[in-house]
Amino acid sequence: MKAIQIFAPPRFDLVNLPDPRCGRSQVLIRTAFCGLCGTDLEILRGTAAPGLVRYPVVPGHEWTGVVEEVGAEVASCRVGDRVSVEGYLPCDRCAACLMGESNRCQAREQIGMTHNGGFAELVVAPARSCHLLPAHVGLDEALMVEPASTVVRGIERARLQPGARAAIIGCGPIGLIAVRVVRLRNPAAILGIDLAATQEPMAVRAGVTQFTTSTDPRELLGRSEAAGWDLVVNCAHGLRSLDLAFQIVRSGGTIVVIGGAPDEQVFQISAHAFVMRDLHIEGVLGYTTRSWVHTLELLADGKLKLGDLITHRTPIEQFQHALDLVTSRAEPMGKVVIAFA
Amino acid sequence: MKAIQIFAPPRFDLVNLPDPRCGRSQVLIRTAFCGLCGTDLEILRGTAAPGLVRYPVVPGHEWTGVVEEVGAEVASCRVGDRVSVEGYLPCDRCAACLMGESNRCQAREQIGMTHNGGFAELVVAPARSCHLLPAHVGLDEALMVEPASTVVRGIERARLQPGARAAIIGCGPIGLIAVRVVRLRNPAAILGIDLAATQEPMAVRAGVTQFTTSTDPRELLGRSEAAGWDLVVNCAHGLRSLDLAFQIVRSGGTIVVIGGAPDEQVFQISAHAFVMRDLHIEGVLGYTTRSWVHTLELLADGKLKLGDLITHRTPIEQFQHALDLVTSRAEPMGKVVIAFA
Amino acid sequence: MKAIQIFAPPRFDLVNLPDPRCGRSQVLIRTAFCGLCGTDLEILRGTAAPGLVRYPVVPGHEWTGVVEEVGAEVASCRVGDRVSVEGYLPCDRCAACLMGESNRCQAREQIGMTHNGGFAELVVAPARSCHLLPAHVGLDEALMVEPASTVVRGIERARLQPGARAAIIGCGPIGLIAVRVVRLRNPAAILGIDLAATQEPMAVRAGVTQFTTSTDPRELLGRSEAAGWDLVVNCAHGLRSLDLAFQIVRSGGTIVVIGGAPDEQVFQISAHAFVMRDLHIEGVLGYTTRSWVHTLELLADGKLKLGDLITHRTPIEQFQHALDLVTSRAEPMGKVVIAFA
Amino acid sequence: MKAIQIFAPPRFDLVNLPDPRCGRSQVLIRTAFCGLCGTDLEILRGTAAPGLVRYPVVPGHEWTGVVEEVGAEVASCRVGDRVSVEGYLPCDRCAACLMGESNRCQAREQIGMTHNGGFAELVVAPARSCHLLPAHVGLDEALMVEPASTVVRGIERARLQPGARAAIIGCGPIGLIAVRVVRLRNPAAILGIDLAATQEPMAVRAGVTQFTTSTDPRELLGRSEAAGWDLVVNCAHGLRSLDLAFQIVRSGGTIVVIGGAPDEQVFQISAHAFVMRDLHIEGVLGYTTRSWVHTLELLADGKLKLGDLITHRTPIEQFQHALDLVTSRAEPMGKVVIAFA
Repeated sequence: MKAIQIFAPPRFDLVNLPDPRCGRSQVLIRTAFCGLCGTDLEILRGTAAPGLVRYPVVPGHEWTGVVEEVGAEVASCRVGDRVSVEGYLPCDRCAACLMGESNRCQAREQIGMTHNGGFAELVVAPARSCHLLPAHVGLDEALMVEPASTVVRGIERARLQPGARAAIIGCGPIGLIAVRVVRLRNPAAILGIDLAATQEPMAVRAGVTQFTTSTDPRELLGRSEAAGWDLVVNCAHGLRSLDLAFQIVRSGGTIVVIGGAPDEQVFQISAHAFVMRDLHIEGVLGYTTRSWVHTLELLADGKLKLGDLITHRTPIEQFQHALDLVTSRAEPMGKVVIAFA
Repeated sequence: MKAIQIFAPPRFDLVNLPDPRCGRSQVLIRTAFCGLCGTDLEILRGTAAPGLVRYPVVPGHEWTGVVEEVGAEVASCRVGDRVSVEGYLPCDRCAACLMGESNRCQAREQIGMTHNGGFAELVVAPARSCHLLPAHVGLDEALMVEPASTVVRGIERARLQPGARAAIIGCGPIGLIAVRVVRLRNPAAILGIDLAATQEPMAVRAGVTQFTTSTDPRELLGRSEAAGWDLVVNCAHGLRSLDLAFQIVRSGGTIVVIGGAPDEQVFQISAHAFVMRDLHIEGVLGYTTRSWVHTLELLADGKLKLGDLITHRTPIEQFQHALDLVTSRAEPMGKVVIAFA
Repeated sequence: MKAIQIFAPPRFDLVNLPDPRCGRSQVLIRTAFCGLCGTDLEILRGTAAPGLVRYPVVPGHEWTGVVEEVGAEVASCRVGDRVSVEGYLPCDRCAACLMGESNRCQAREQIGMTHNGGFAELVVAPARSCHLLPAHVGLDEALMVEPASTVVRGIERARLQPGARAAIIGCGPIGLIAVRVVRLRNPAAILGIDLAATQEPMAVRAGVTQFTTSTDPRELLGRSEAAGWDLVVNCAHGLRSLDLAFQIVRSGGTIVVIGGAPDEQVFQISAHAFVMRDLHIEGVLGYTTRSWVHTLELLADGKLKLGDLITHRTPIEQFQHALDLVTSRAEPMGKVVIAFA
Repeated sequence: MKAIQIFAPPRFDLVNLPDPRCGRSQVLIRTAFCGLCGTDLEILRGTAAPGLVRYPVVPGHEWTGVVEEVGAEVASCRVGDRVSVEGYLPCDRCAACLMGESNRCQAREQIGMTHNGGFAELVVAPARSCHLLPAHVGLDEALMVEPASTVVRGIERARLQPGARAAIIGCGPIGLIAVRVVRLRNPAAILGIDLAATQEPMAVRAGVTQFTTSTDPRELLGRSEAAGWDLVVNCAHGLRSLDLAFQIVRSGGTIVVIGGAPDEQVFQISAHAFVMRDLHIEGVLGYTTRSWVHTLELLADGKLKLGDLITHRTPIEQFQHALDLVTSRAEPMGKVVIAFA
């Protein structure tokens, strides 16, 4: 099968690998679509957090496909089923797994990181990780479940009431999804903030009520029509964005941090700000089965729409071009996707 | 009346001021005890956050007394009543006040900061701010309600389950109170951390199960008997303590920040840590009427005991000596209190 | 002034009363609109819960008006201000008031029940109970804040996630408001249930996705597209509706009870159902300042619209006709309102 | 192996069954202890809820043992391990299972109900259902994890604050466990209510601060030192107890229902009471892996002690005698246990 394989970063190749075989409780899936994520860039460059990746590996953790073969013990899906697949491979024994929080599993095994992932024509996955797609959800839209289930879980923790005013820092794919998920709570306003003016059309498509490239706290506070934003969701990478979040949130408000900065970097904040502002802050790592299923239901019911946030599709042969698209941001960018056949 | 007055910081004097008069809806109270708090040091030095203080002022916001006179419209208390008094003077009109969160009132009027406070023989307060002391609660112990009601509110936000493992950074008066309040949730372990070895006896008295002067994250993690502490309560001032909190909390755990650093200082943290650790963080500013009343009830029922955390009492004539005690930490220190008559 | 006065129920009269005078901290308000509520019927008949009403009284607790005069100490509003007015007159001293829950105040003093209310040309109220209307909110729509703030508080307690399926039992004014408030949480479906087929147009206007007059549990479960409804909001009076709520909620689901049955009646339920269905149930009594303010904000931001749920307006001279409208339900009925001048 | 088998209720026999064999992912466990529960009585009589039991069956769902043999694929436990075993056998596919709530699994397969359970010398269970016992937790005490994990989950839902006043209706084994679990939250008072005066010593051992056989609401309200109990936990079977819970809870308080009444019975309640008292009610069905693990941790840390609530141990040959003990209540009764070997 054709696959993007990283033998040792930063080098990767489009190679031909033997077709994988599925074990008794596994499923073999023919990949339909696989999205490119910021984490993929780190995996390709070799800058991901230590322990997160085991090379050589086929990356790709935002993917969907059609079941091609099922193991002897598999009863939960059948050949021909359209599936989306949780990436975490929980150990089922650590404290986090026992609490149902596979996102914090100490073993940290993950499809597309420690196991071969979706930038290949075929992927093997445990049957238990596969979720059947509802009838009206496309294989392309469904690849968005992976990032969206993280956002859904993060925004649930924010306990947002209708009528709140929310600011989203960073209008890349995660930020755009955050706009959609926040909008489900009927906020009175959603401000999208992104350094790239080219992202404005995407932010508007996602549903912001205002957009700005400004990072001037005074200007951003002024737009809140109050003494700050009730909720600030940080979906940007880098030092400045988290700092900005603290400056524009209202006293007593909430910050949700979905995008982190590279590990070695630090950000600076007045410790006083935590206390004197009476803030509530949530750092959000990944999804759980619970938030994955909830996200699929939202797609099935048409409450959440994500398909139109996919803006670019390329065949696997043009993987480098897809990478260039993600990093350039020269034009309005949503999710960039490798489309198989 | 005798009073400590700060005319312009850093100068203060023991002066004789005219006895204050109480208005129609106010109460005149003869002060019994007034505690010294870290914020008082900032008020005396002139380093408190801008807008917090209006000079000249009589400081003192942790105090109790006996009602000496009541205004014409006051029905809620009578001459001779023993009272503890909320310091916030809510405007009743800003968004925070309407939500019952006078701690975030935009007007920021406060007894001992913008109005004369408890380091004087007499204090005037609104009748509505006065809470009658339960029969078995002493006037000395009751002055601890002010700091304790902040801690009670902060720990409630931590949603601590019985059997959790908690670390308290900083074993000064706030940290000692935090040990007592955390203990009400029946944790499996409470680690007290303080740079001053002299605080160990106080920490043990408060109820820690372990004490250390170490700030080596590895050593502190090792003591958790797990991959970190479920809850870390930062009750220390300064840059290093918050940084330490992030290093010793377990993934998926909670940090409560009660003590802040001076305003102009910054602390450094990996933005990645928020996300990759799936942390929940609460910055806690002050108390509400709700947490004040709850704290009084806990004292009344004997569930919370705070009187034994008062270790030093001096007359107002020795105010400077009291200040020296607070800053020196040469011996085991709990709360330092000015005792009137 | 003209007023509806109940001297001793069930007799009431349109009378001329002396204009009331406002005290130092009170406000005199010229009534604009006053809505009729099911509780008013009980007050008029003398069947309200013991202690709730003190006769003789001018009823009317859902009202708005324009400030005509303010007391000497009033700074929070001015002559000409358009206001909506909280009905609870909190004692400020009982445990409930101290917790900010004036809806449970033990003194139970209330405008329109123990104090003269809005079915009169003029009403006196404490200045602190008055909330200025946002510029774009009409005096008619704003009278809906009273019932809506109860619903807002009840639905907040339900912790509804987007995509949930909700059934509303009873499509009278409270049920219609519940549809609107539930809709703010973006449910996947809202089923309206009412015995009167004539209410279907109103339910549809409010936003139900389905409407039925059926009370057959099997039929109602079938409509849920699952093993029951995630949320059932009981807004109907009478024994049968609560029983029905238990039958159609899904296991692990939530029941919110806003409408009660007359006091002397009982309803029957299998105690087993509580446990074997793992249900969460909230009984909702009234509003708090917090939910009142939140409701006003939702109206100000246009997130919640309630004006179109007012279907009938009559002058106070036709009060009996208004009562007949409320009880007849011969045509689609929303809120019936007495319009002054 | 020796086993109690119910071929068709109400007849059961002590029989010799062939030793069970364990499958590839299963474990064979030699039973150490198995407790008798009220549900067992219903299973033996044939009065359990329809669908809960599949006869013939070996009952027993509160049990522990030592691993005797493991299937070929089992890596999570080894021969000789001491284990407690979750009874639910989740389907892993229904909505409840995907949410981590196996207590509501639609398939309702359960050891001791649809699969042979702990009243036998050997039991087969899925390896994933087995939890290793911490070193200091005895095989006898650990059988209490099954009922206790339900109580732990129920009381967590009550969101009890320290200093609350709690009443426990019913001081049988579940009620006694509830006293212990509530006590972990440091209530100001725990009232135990049981019709049998003989249970007073057990209730006192568990930790009540008061005990009564009265069911007179007035008397019980008087004991609350307030206008009712903050929390009422119903652990009794029968119609009257739930009714009583509604009468003695304070306005704004919480009722947790753990014990239900037999299915065909109904209880009567004023629908008004739900609303006019602003009550919060939780019906609690079973445990989740999360609450099971939490309960084991509480035992491991010594925060929760349950061993002393086991008062009677008999060999399996005296099973009928054990049943008689459970139903008679002639003497102080805690948990009655069948002890193997």
